[in-house]
Amino acid sequence: MTRRISIFGSTGSIGLSTIDLIARDPEAFEVVALTGGHNIARLAEQARALKAQVAVTAHEENLPELRDALAGTGIEAAAGEAAIEEAARRPADWVMSAIVGAAGLPPGLAALEEGATLALANKESLVTAGPLVLATVEANKAKGARLLPVDSEHSAVFQGLVGEEMDAVERIIITASGGAFRDWPIEKLADATLEQASSHPNWDMGQRITIDSASMFNKALELIETKEYFGVSPDRIEVLVHPQSLVHALVGFNDGALMAHVGPADMRHAIGYALNWPDRKALPVERLDLAAIGQLEFRAPDERRWPALRLAREVMAEGGLSGAVFNAAKEAALDGFIAGRINFVRMSELVEEVLTKLSGDSSLIHADITLDNVRAADQMARKTAKDMIEAGA
Amino acid sequence: MTRRISIFGSTGSIGLSTIDLIARDPEAFEVVALTGGHNIARLAEQARALKAQVAVTAHEENLPELRDALAGTGIEAAAGEAAIEEAARRPADWVMSAIVGAAGLPPGLAALEEGATLALANKESLVTAGPLVLATVEANKAKGARLLPVDSEHSAVFQGLVGEEMDAVERIIITASGGAFRDWPIEKLADATLEQASSHPNWDMGQRITIDSASMFNKALELIETKEYFGVSPDRIEVLVHPQSLVHALVGFNDGALMAHVGPADMRHAIGYALNWPDRKALPVERLDLAAIGQLEFRAPDERRWPALRLAREVMAEGGLSGAVFNAAKEAALDGFIAGRINFVRMSELVEEVLTKLSGDSSLIHADITLDNVRAADQMARKTAKDMIEAGA
Repeated sequence: MTRRISIFGSTGSIGLSTIDLIARDPEAFEVVALTGGHNIARLAEQARALKAQVAVTAHEENLPELRDALAGTGIEAAAGEAAIEEAARRPADWVMSAIVGAAGLPPGLAALEEGATLALANKESLVTAGPLVLATVEANKAKGARLLPVDSEHSAVFQGLVGEEMDAVERIIITASGGAFRDWPIEKLADATLEQASSHPNWDMGQRITIDSASMFNKALELIETKEYFGVSPDRIEVLVHPQSLVHALVGFNDGALMAHVGPADMRHAIGYALNWPDRKALPVERLDLAAIGQLEFRAPDERRWPALRLAREVMAEGGLSGAVFNAAKEAALDGFIAGRINFVRMSELVEEVLTKLSGDSSLIHADITLDNVRAADQMARKTAKDMIEAGA
Repeated sequence: MTRRISIFGSTGSIGLSTIDLIARDPEAFEVVALTGGHNIARLAEQARALKAQVAVTAHEENLPELRDALAGTGIEAAAGEAAIEEAARRPADWVMSAIVGAAGLPPGLAALEEGATLALANKESLVTAGPLVLATVEANKAKGARLLPVDSEHSAVFQGLVGEEMDAVERIIITASGGAFRDWPIEKLADATLEQASSHPNWDMGQRITIDSASMFNKALELIETKEYFGVSPDRIEVLVHPQSLVHALVGFNDGALMAHVGPADMRHAIGYALNWPDRKALPVERLDLAAIGQLEFRAPDERRWPALRLAREVMAEGGLSGAVFNAAKEAALDGFIAGRINFVRMSELVEEVLTKLSGDSSLIHADITLDNVRAADQMARKTAKDMIEAGA
């Protein structure tokens, strides 16, 4: 029995790993839709290799190139937001949501509405619109809608909860490598260059997420995702610095047991777990030899080094659309850092200032969590942050 | 709804921890039988406090003292092997098997035959007669018979398997502290004194098991138990030295995930898990702070330092009653070491010689696994080992 699969964001790191797995067992899968951005050559190559029904680029201006690349294959070519959503509504059993940023939310919701299992790698969906996403899952459960985590940390928590009752969960601990600057003197962080911030000690990822790892904005988003996905109160969620990135998360139970998920820093594990769930199937990832590794190190996170963690706790306490504001302000701050407009330390200060400024606007922060209101909060936060950067703040 | 509980070996370390837990919620339990050895004062005190139906000492000569201590309470007093078995046949929902040594097997089998859930702390049951114990569980499943592990390692594996399929299990890793001599030069081990061997770095246990921990005979028995309990082939079971005794076991799956059980070195966790299974309930054990702990260390076990591990693999390969021979020879060798008759290193040599000598006797090793044949193999191995010690070997 073949499974129908769509991959949103197929040309990025998560998309490539997903395709690496499904390409090993082509008989088992029927690829419906693949979507990408500007890398048309790769998108077309993937669509041809996997015999997709449709390939969609996010950018209208790339459509002619995509059409050319797919000429004579019978594979449809399309472009733009509406085409991505149309692709998400095509019947599929399993959909990978790996578009980066706020653009990942609408196709994910569309796929859930059609009753797909959504493997969620897009962090923004739960951070900006957790209650909306979960309500969409609930409303479409009878059709088969399900949400599976793909982040290594959330997949690890999910695996630690297999067969367990949430009532018995006392705490959830997600780990953080600490990123590029975990051992830097805090007072030097303001001088960190883009190049320094873009080099991750363990994971091979894109530039933006690598910088978010150094600032722990990435972990801050994951804290919020943990609260949303598992429905655990924020005071029961902890971050633990673990430089080796081998223990991905631990679930602490009321009988004192911690069930820890340990595995290689290879996204194909979490992707494959979501792909094969509820079964486990053999995956082509390294088997760890703990004796050779020798030791696993842990430290408490220092919130002076990583103020993003403190901000995440404020966002979790505030609720509503503050996650959308937080994420958008972070994106704008990150743009500012990459453009050389603000320094590394200024990123979290700026995000905090945006949160403070907009938190008074209850009609924005505590509006109903709809796609439109998420967009409005996102745009307002980005504009506020950009204005602050422009003003040289 | 109260649960009927019996504790075999109530005055030892595991028994005390079990009582510590049930005494916290006296309304929930009705104590049927308690059994002990020479510590009559403690046994009687426990029986009075828990309002047991019957208290049994293993030793006939202690019966008058037990009768006196229980006079006027209405609690029955009894003594001897037959009385222990009679107590094991009294209807109970949950039975703790914590008698040390070969004497623990018959009451455990009797409790299973009566349809009880047997929490198994007695190591010898699975090592000497695994197939018999498991067949007894199977034969009495309809009546409610179940076997739950209580060793911290096996409980950890059991917890790592909750909700998982055995088909997906690639390996089981049990940890070992390495005991008192893990950092000694191997050539000094022959000079180890009884006092040195009797001091465990992490766990507060009896003298015999502490010495077995230093020699890793304890871990050797646990390897065999792991094979029997989980039905995993020996080449999929590993021992990992972990000096802190906080990670108790890891289950490795075919997708590269290792689910590790991490918790304090407190037997009340594993006992409480078995007591509350299939639920988890709050237990009064320490919650670990991994940041404060800082690091978890792992090493490969050196089979020159710990030949018992190699012997356990030979026993697993041989099967039959070689586990009974191994265990009995180990007991005799341990007696010899405690008595100052042989040195620390000589213990494993002696056990190997007994195994070699008796492995040729197929009518002994590969006889049907019955209680009588287990006893015969046990006695033959003890006698062989004792004779070797007498002969000054």
